[in-house]
Formats: sequence, structure tokens, C-alpha cells
Amino acid sequence: MKTLIVVGHPELADSQTQAFLKAAAGDRGRRHVLTAPFDPASERQLLWQADRIILQFPLYWYNVPAILKQWLDQVFDDHLLGPAGDRLAGKELGAVVSLGRPLAEFGAGKRQGFSLDDYLRPLQGVARATRMRWLPPLAISQFAYQGPRDQAALLVAYQQYLTLPQPASFADRVNWFAAQLARQAERAQGDQATRYAQLRALLMQRQAELSDLQDNLRLIKEGGQ
Amino acid sequence: MKTLIVVGHPELADSQTQAFLKAAAGDRGRRHVLTAPFDPASERQLLWQADRIILQFPLYWYNVPAILKQWLDQVFDDHLLGPAGDRLAGKELGAVVSLGRPLAEFGAGKRQGFSLDDYLRPLQGVARATRMRWLPPLAISQFAYQGPRDQAALLVAYQQYLTLPQPASFADRVNWFAAQLARQAERAQGDQATRYAQLRALLMQRQAELSDLQDNLRLIKEGGQ
Repeated sequence: MKTLIVVGHPELADSQTQAFLKAAAGDRGRRHVLTAPFDPASERQLLWQADRIILQFPLYWYNVPAILKQWLDQVFDDHLLGPAGDRLAGKELGAVVSLGRPLAEFGAGKRQGFSLDDYLRPLQGVARATRMRWLPPLAISQFAYQGPRDQAALLVAYQQYLTLPQPASFADRVNWFAAQLARQAERAQGDQATRYAQLRALLMQRQAELSDLQDNLRLIKEGGQ
Repeated sequence: MKTLIVVGHPELADSQTQAFLKAAAGDRGRRHVLTAPFDPASERQLLWQADRIILQFPLYWYNVPAILKQWLDQVFDDHLLGPAGDRLAGKELGAVVSLGRPLAEFGAGKRQGFSLDDYLRPLQGVARATRMRWLPPLAISQFAYQGPRDQAALLVAYQQYLTLPQPASFADRVNWFAAQLARQAERAQGDQATRYAQLRALLMQRQAELSDLQDNLRLIKEGGQ
């Protein structure tokens, strides 16, 4: 699967969040930083080649920043969609949104008034009109205040958001971890490589045990009916 | 009441809708056409002086056009809101939105997927955060296809949106019409002036009869309890 990461940020050089995400993405997607003016022809090529398009931006005034809106206004036209309007059909559209306030403040009756889903309706409209599948957004709350543990969790969530089928099942996530450990084991040497391999074996064994338990649970439930 | 009309349109010269609205507004509000770059200091003065701020724009990709977002991103900051965050508090924020599709297509399960209110959540968030009162938007569906009757209705709705207390009662609207007729009568001459005055007298008489009927209806209801 080809993932295109469209970065719309007016002050990219100053953004810790975006620097972190750039390092976290690695080769998991093609990173495309928006700078006006746009060449619609090359923008179209990028979009047509992608299977998953991720819009990555800070939420400014409960909306995409102007640079990203400019890109949508100028690039998303009849040429992009094609004569039958289906050139983006079947692709996935997602959003990685950094927030200056905690995500918990978003929702009816809460400090920010509406949920993040509410505020992202315009993008959901874009997905609908272009016949792309909308992916639930990945929200990043106040990155600057996050400790190492939250950042590690974000790293994993982000990498999975770029590459895993969405919505991802628990088994998808376990297999993803196993693949990461295998990759680390290949790259590491000596004791370190052994440790990664052991971790991977342990993870797969636990997953097998979990599957067994789920099978047993199903049998018990069926027996009780 | 001072109304500021903030026009955000990337192709203003080609817009029939905006030409119509300009003529319809007359002296009922101060018209301010957005052109980048902005001078935040003078933008702030305009906003501080207004009681009602109307954002007037075509809906592009279910959202404000880039020029309007750029203005929000650059002008709406701590300087504008002041140290206590209340420099816009108590003002009204409205939107005059022109649509390329019929308004009837907006809503859950309909062609455009969500209602216009849904798509305008980001602006409602701006109103909330700046402590302005959000006015229900005035939507203009496919202006180019409207006949003279629809355009006349739009003219009235727009003029009322700029100047009447919102939400406007039926009596507010009747008084508004009476004031318009009085104004026309003053400007006209001879028979024409007489006709406006007669129309105004007839309107006020009907309004008085309607008030009597409502009083009677209230008495009957109270008698029945």
C-alpha cells in the first residue's frame, strides 16, 4: 500500500510535532510538504499514485490551516477527479491533527464546544464527494507536554495509522509488532539481535495462547445456548 | 448597529452573486473585501468597531475559501482578542454562504452528506472561542438559476440579515417593511410617493388587525382553561 503524507503547516521549521512525525514515519509513506504556489499537474500525479492520503496539520481555528485549504481549492478539481469523477474513488483519506488543547476538551458541552469529528466535517465532505473512504483521525494532544511514554505510544499509533488496514484488529496490531521486532532483529547484532528475536517469539506465543482462550470461550458460550 | 460585511472570494470580479449582494447591501453595512496580505492593525480596528460581523463567501469544498481562512489564521490572535480575551465578546458573527448546489441536498443521508450547519462547525467554534453570538447562516442556493421572484426574496432576506435583530420576529419584519416603504415614499414623487404611503398604511393596518386577532385568540384560549 502506498501512503502519501500531505503536510500542511505554515511554520513547519518551528514545529516539534512535525519533526517527531517526520522521524517516526521513516519510509512508511511519501512525505509531501505543501508550499504555494502549487503545480496542479504534479500534485495530481502524487494523489493518483497513492492508496492512502493522510492530511497532516495543526488545527487552526477548528479547521485546516490556510495553506491546506489553498491546496484543496486549487488542486481538487475536475482534472483531478477525471471525466467520470472517480479518479480518487476507493482510496483512503485520513487526518493526523495536532491540537493546542487536550482532546478531552472536545465534545458537546465541553470547553471546545464540539467534537473533533464535528470540526472535521468539511474534510469528511471532501472524502464523500471524491468517493474516498474517510479514516477516523489520529489526534495529537499538546505534543510539547507529552512525556516519553506518551510519545512512544504516539510513535506506534502513527506508524500503524500510516500502514495498517484501518480499522486495525487486535491481531493486526500484534502481527505489526512482531514484524517490527523481526526487522529490528535483522538490523541488530549479537545479544541485542537475540533479545529482539526472543521478544518476538514471546509475543507470538502469547498471541497463540490468546487465540486458544478465545476458541475455548466460544465453545463454552455455544455449549451454554 | 454597525454591520461589517467581510467578503472572502478568490474570484470576486466574476461573481454575479457578490455583485448582487453589493447592490443589495447599499449603506446597510460596511463592505470589506479581503485581499492578502493583511494589515492586522487595520483589520483589528474594523472588527472592534463592528457590532455584527458577517462572513460572506462561496462554500468551497464544504468550507470557507482559502483567503478567508488565511484572514482568520493571521488576524484572529491574542492582539485582536485582548489580554482578557473579550474584545469581541457580545458581538454577533454570521455567515452569508453561496452554494453551487441546492440547499435541499444538504443533510444526513442526502447528496451532500451533512447539513450546512454541520459543515460550518469550525466557524461556530470561532464564535464560541471569541465569545461572539453565532447567527444562523443565510444560504444562497445556485444564484445563477434563480428567477426574479427568488432574487427579490433574497434581496429582502439579505437586507434583513444585515440589519434586523436576529432571530427576527414577525413584527420585526413587518416594521422593517413599513420603514422601507416610508423611505421609498420620501424619495419618490407625486403618484408614486402616494402609492408607497398607501401601501405602508395598508401594511400597518393589517398588522394592527393581526395583533387584535392574536389578542382575541389569547383570550379565548385563557377562557377555555
